[in-house]
Amino acid sequence: MRFRLTPREDSYYDMFADSANNLVTGARLLVELISDGGNREGIAEKMRACEHAGDEFTHAIMRRLNESFITPFDREDIYRLASSLDDVMDFMEAAADLVVLYKIDELPGEVVDQVEVLERAAELTAEAMPRLRGMKNLSEYWIEINRLENQGDQVYRRLLAELFGGEYDALTVLKLKEVVDQLEAAADAFEKVANTVESIAVKES
Amino acid sequence: MRFRLTPREDSYYDMFADSANNLVTGARLLVELISDGGNREGIAEKMRACEHAGDEFTHAIMRRLNESFITPFDREDIYRLASSLDDVMDFMEAAADLVVLYKIDELPGEVVDQVEVLERAAELTAEAMPRLRGMKNLSEYWIEINRLENQGDQVYRRLLAELFGGEYDALTVLKLKEVVDQLEAAADAFEKVANTVESIAVKES
Amino acid sequence: MRFRLTPREDSYYDMFADSANNLVTGARLLVELISDGGNREGIAEKMRACEHAGDEFTHAIMRRLNESFITPFDREDIYRLASSLDDVMDFMEAAADLVVLYKIDELPGEVVDQVEVLERAAELTAEAMPRLRGMKNLSEYWIEINRLENQGDQVYRRLLAELFGGEYDALTVLKLKEVVDQLEAAADAFEKVANTVESIAVKES
Repeated sequence: MRFRLTPREDSYYDMFADSANNLVTGARLLVELISDGGNREGIAEKMRACEHAGDEFTHAIMRRLNESFITPFDREDIYRLASSLDDVMDFMEAAADLVVLYKIDELPGEVVDQVEVLERAAELTAEAMPRLRGMKNLSEYWIEINRLENQGDQVYRRLLAELFGGEYDALTVLKLKEVVDQLEAAADAFEKVANTVESIAVKES
Repeated sequence: MRFRLTPREDSYYDMFADSANNLVTGARLLVELISDGGNREGIAEKMRACEHAGDEFTHAIMRRLNESFITPFDREDIYRLASSLDDVMDFMEAAADLVVLYKIDELPGEVVDQVEVLERAAELTAEAMPRLRGMKNLSEYWIEINRLENQGDQVYRRLLAELFGGEYDALTVLKLKEVVDQLEAAADAFEKVANTVESIAVKES
Repeated sequence: MRFRLTPREDSYYDMFADSANNLVTGARLLVELISDGGNREGIAEKMRACEHAGDEFTHAIMRRLNESFITPFDREDIYRLASSLDDVMDFMEAAADLVVLYKIDELPGEVVDQVEVLERAAELTAEAMPRLRGMKNLSEYWIEINRLENQGDQVYRRLLAELFGGEYDALTVLKLKEVVDQLEAAADAFEKVANTVESIAVKES
């Protein structure tokens, strides 16, 4: 039997992993919502539950942070990491909600590409969180997220050019753009998560 | 006569109270602006003066923070609290200004509900600030603000559904949505104030 | 020959100066883009290169910050200063990119005023950065930036009133407003740079 001297410390890693795994669930719900016109309200409902779960994970981290004297890395970095993981979820949930709220029947095809970028970013983030414990093999993670975010940017700009290309009326442009903007904000928030991880890793090295 | 050993420390509480009381003034001006089509330019002018007063309170807090070695709670929390109180005012002032600037004649009825949420949140915040001194009875404040913010969210989403429902032309949607977005941002900023107060209270407990 | 005891410390000032000088280049590209309908894609391309250069300066500062135990002023202030210089560039680049992406042929005349405010703010910022070293004559800089930002605000509001005045169709309003919003965000980011410099100077005084 192995005694652990700092049992409470460790669980930050578990909490970050919970929060990131929840993003994988959310991103997959988005893929489902976009690809399948079937039961949008049902999916948006699940997304809402997913976002509430995310709030719980975030609050648990913040509570722990406020109660701890000793933290495994800088308090400000823990705060930033938890906040930006939470931001990703908020943007994804908002996108799903707006699709239902605005009764959007059809989304431009590139939105599928946008959502696939989010799904991949969520998986990479979830795989990286446990590696924070040993600070190992993290650089491949943040390099790949930065690459994905650039790819997402290009998809986003193609989408804007299409939206404003004259095919859609102004009201439809307005609705679609808001959905697309939330998805783009989610991709940016994944990059912020990766930047924070990079910052933590550099300090520890 | 009672001597106070740390006379300069105390006034952070007074400055936060000043800033929050100013938000009550601002929220009431918004109620006036929305409910009464009468003298909109005059009310927007008063709102501008109110926002300038808020800037003064914020600068006073920041100046004090920069000059102090000892603070009643974490520097970063003081910074966050002052900034988010200031944000509320900025969003409320922007909403009032846009109503006048865009010459909006009629606002959807739910905007009244939105503004009433802000008024109530301002009153609760102003009542809570003096209680920071003793760190007493603050949890009821942040719980109520969170409840109000959820209520505000629902009003906001009903409003969006109405705006995009087909009744309004695109240009009108664009104008109204900007006003409504500023009011929603003000409600979110009140929640950020409450979250900061919660964070301060948890650390002190 | 003069020995410098803390050679590595000094280069923060150089890095901030590099970042701010890069903003002057960016602002001048914007002026060129707006005033000359000629080779917009070419100018937007140069702007993209300028933004990449800015990213490098920002990363260099962040890397140094993460590796340093001792910093010439508060870590959080260095972080804020670098981030807000980076934000200015991002907003300017986005504005240029949108002009090309949305194939905007003609911009309202006031956009020239908006861009001139940015150019002047960039020049003032670049001149101020080397003065951080001695903390001298900085107040005239931040006072002038605040004045410029107020002037920019007035131009921005006149622009909005014009956009929504009925002359433009909704889709055009939507496109133009996004460009104008990015430029306004750049002006706000310059003010944030100045506020951070003020905050640093007050602490050091």
